Amino acid sequence: MYTYKSSEDRLVELKYLLDKKRPNELSELLRRTNPVDIVEFIEELSAEEALVVFRLLKKDDAVEVFAELESEEKEKLQAGLQEREFKELLRDLNFDDMIDTLEEMPAAMVQRILKSSDKQTRALVNEYLSFPEYSAGRLMTTEFVELKPYMTVKEALAHIKKVGHDMVTLYTCYVTSPTKEILGYVSLRSIVTNKPDTLIDDLMYQDVIYVHTTDDQEDVALTFQKYGFTALPVVDKTDRLVGLITVDDIMWIIEQEATEDFQLLAGTTPDEEAYSKTRPWDLAKNRIPWLMFLMISATFTSTILRGYEYVVQAVIALNMFIPMLTDSGGNAGSQASTLVIRAMATHDIETSDWAKVVLKEITVGLICGLALGIVAFLKCYFFDKVGMQVSFIVGLTIVGIVVIAKTVGSLLPIVAEKFGADPAIMASPLISTIVDSLSLIVYFNVARLMIPGL
Amino acid sequence: MYTYKSSEDRLVELKYLLDKKRPNELSELLRRTNPVDIVEFIEELSAEEALVVFRLLKKDDAVEVFAELESEEKEKLQAGLQEREFKELLRDLNFDDMIDTLEEMPAAMVQRILKSSDKQTRALVNEYLSFPEYSAGRLMTTEFVELKPYMTVKEALAHIKKVGHDMVTLYTCYVTSPTKEILGYVSLRSIVTNKPDTLIDDLMYQDVIYVHTTDDQEDVALTFQKYGFTALPVVDKTDRLVGLITVDDIMWIIEQEATEDFQLLAGTTPDEEAYSKTRPWDLAKNRIPWLMFLMISATFTSTILRGYEYVVQAVIALNMFIPMLTDSGGNAGSQASTLVIRAMATHDIETSDWAKVVLKEITVGLICGLALGIVAFLKCYFFDKVGMQVSFIVGLTIVGIVVIAKTVGSLLPIVAEKFGADPAIMASPLISTIVDSLSLIVYFNVARLMIPGL
Repeated sequence: MYTYKSSEDRLVELKYLLDKKRPNELSELLRRTNPVDIVEFIEELSAEEALVVFRLLKKDDAVEVFAELESEEKEKLQAGLQEREFKELLRDLNFDDMIDTLEEMPAAMVQRILKSSDKQTRALVNEYLSFPEYSAGRLMTTEFVELKPYMTVKEALAHIKKVGHDMVTLYTCYVTSPTKEILGYVSLRSIVTNKPDTLIDDLMYQDVIYVHTTDDQEDVALTFQKYGFTALPVVDKTDRLVGLITVDDIMWIIEQEATEDFQLLAGTTPDEEAYSKTRPWDLAKNRIPWLMFLMISATFTSTILRGYEYVVQAVIALNMFIPMLTDSGGNAGSQASTLVIRAMATHDIETSDWAKVVLKEITVGLICGLALGIVAFLKCYFFDKVGMQVSFIVGLTIVGIVVIAKTVGSLLPIVAEKFGADPAIMASPLISTIVDSLSLIVYFNVARLMIPGL
Repeated sequence: MYTYKSSEDRLVELKYLLDKKRPNELSELLRRTNPVDIVEFIEELSAEEALVVFRLLKKDDAVEVFAELESEEKEKLQAGLQEREFKELLRDLNFDDMIDTLEEMPAAMVQRILKSSDKQTRALVNEYLSFPEYSAGRLMTTEFVELKPYMTVKEALAHIKKVGHDMVTLYTCYVTSPTKEILGYVSLRSIVTNKPDTLIDDLMYQDVIYVHTTDDQEDVALTFQKYGFTALPVVDKTDRLVGLITVDDIMWIIEQEATEDFQLLAGTTPDEEAYSKTRPWDLAKNRIPWLMFLMISATFTSTILRGYEYVVQAVIALNMFIPMLTDSGGNAGSQASTLVIRAMATHDIETSDWAKVVLKEITVGLICGLALGIVAFLKCYFFDKVGMQVSFIVGLTIVGIVVIAKTVGSLLPIVAEKFGADPAIMASPLISTIVDSLSLIVYFNVARLMIPGL
């Protein structure tokens, strides 16, 4: 049994056979290795070695491996391949993979390749490039099975057998009208489990759920998640079927979108490159603008502190609780904003729910604030021994700060979305900075009210 | 064409037909509605209405709809169904959906139902319950197609046609030995595109990638993402094939795991309930422990402030930059920790990469710190007009704080993972609190060094 779970073992074995120059055994083992693992293997090799391995692959695997390689690896291989070989490879790629490859290549080379390809391909490429970035049009492939309602199961199976090899998936087939409108869909499952003379018309589902070429990839991912489909059809402005998106491309998008939100939460400019592959200089470039903006915003607290200096000078003990208070406000605000950002990203709540959300957060804020306020009071009084007055000011301030922080933290992501910005920019760092200033104002005003003569 | 994109329109139409008591048209429209939308429809109805709609569904849809309902909706329906009806429904559910339903029911009722079910089902249920929570065993279904290597394509198709109806997927079929070991897998795609007399043995792939019943669902999700499969086989301790996991269950897990990390990042206890469905009281309960812990930790800053009070009293201008400095430290640290947490969650980096990560963050910290330090110095000197000495202290402190914050922020998630904790607990709030204290210590020590006589 050639089952394997550890791809590391497999990679070691492949490398051994390559080093020992045993092409037959290597080729045999490559045939039993998943293309994803072959990609990992090739990425560790020198350009010459990579070319040797690549040429040992059987054609289907070579096409799949090439599609999955990182762009610099593709370039390395391409440099070693003859132009004829490369063009052939390009022709065998699925449409979306071909486009990805072309996009990464120098413009002059793309021109040369397109010139020598047929008219239909050129038209497709041009149409593709007209779709907005991150849209369904950019994700779709154009290789799908089209059936007609008047076909029988037997005819459909024969058709699938004939065209199946070049298709991305056979498992969902779309039934179209002569003008390319979708009439319905039929799964290969129901084709193979029904009698040969059954009409496709009788088998197809008519409740087709589709996306438009211009739909955002995030919405496409949500539609996949909602219905649990493995493929979704893509239609153009005039509702003609033009492509198909499969679930394997979507899983990466779900993860990518989450990563993008994490990056915004971290207060950095989102970057598509993986962390491990981003150079320090680029990481710094993504982070400095936010850090700078937040630092400048935070200096606003200096202005507030300066304005209330007389309060601190009157009761110096107040000073030492400032970091604790601003921190607690920031934490309370981050909790609210992060959860609201996530709930909006997963479409659990919408902007129209704003009143419900804010009301909920005020309630949560009151409960949390009271709990924290009491503990803070007790700690100040019994542990820090700063006296009843200051302890009470600190305790009361906490309640106010937590309620305000929760309100601001829940409201701002919704406001951002309303104005067409990504709610995730209203993440912890920004909320903390805003809440810091508010916390100081609350603190000093509570103090002024409580301390006679101020 | 009954295609639809807006499920809202569909729901309005269904409700209209229900209210107007037009069962035939309603039943007709239900047949053309995706079960996921029917679930949404039923969840808005009263128990009586829900029962009416449920009984209008054709059997396959009823089973699918029931499986997808929230547990309280299931209970509502169940109360209206006769026990015989309910048992029949339960029998028609896929194994994993049946288990989910049983798990949500009162223990006494489960006992009664199990007693009247066959021995094999009882054994399966008991085995299932022995798997750890969130393991592959709990995710898998037991309805999959098994083929034998000696079958021909024609025989395989006949077998699939016979057993196909009850199977979760037909698209990946596993080839097993008489002792239930996996010998390989074959896709329905290659079965339908090959000649009738081809042997399954010649079509099957032998590089089976599988998971174990006890594997964590997060690892299962990563395997799906890595290889882009739509189904993965599950084997038991003795490597016998026992189940199958399909990609639609995995998409939710990818999202759930990300949501869990978001909750930890927010400094709250993770909760499986959606935000919109969690009551304020429960939200508060999830948040108070962290807020409390962070507040108490933050009071450590008071101790530090108290210890260095003489520095502030000597140069009172230093006081007003404290929040800005601690904030900048917190932000710099959060950036590092959040990105490292995400990189670990997506397996972009591992604990063994710690030295590389820390070195990278120190470099990034130096670049960011210098940029921020220079701006802070200029701002203090020209804008706040606090003099050369204080401006220089602030600028220099920023450089130190940013480097330290980046180091701590990147190291702590790795340390957490090393000790078997979720790296996401080392999120912004905790990092900020730790960095706050460090920032103050750096600030006051830089001041002591720079100000003669302190």
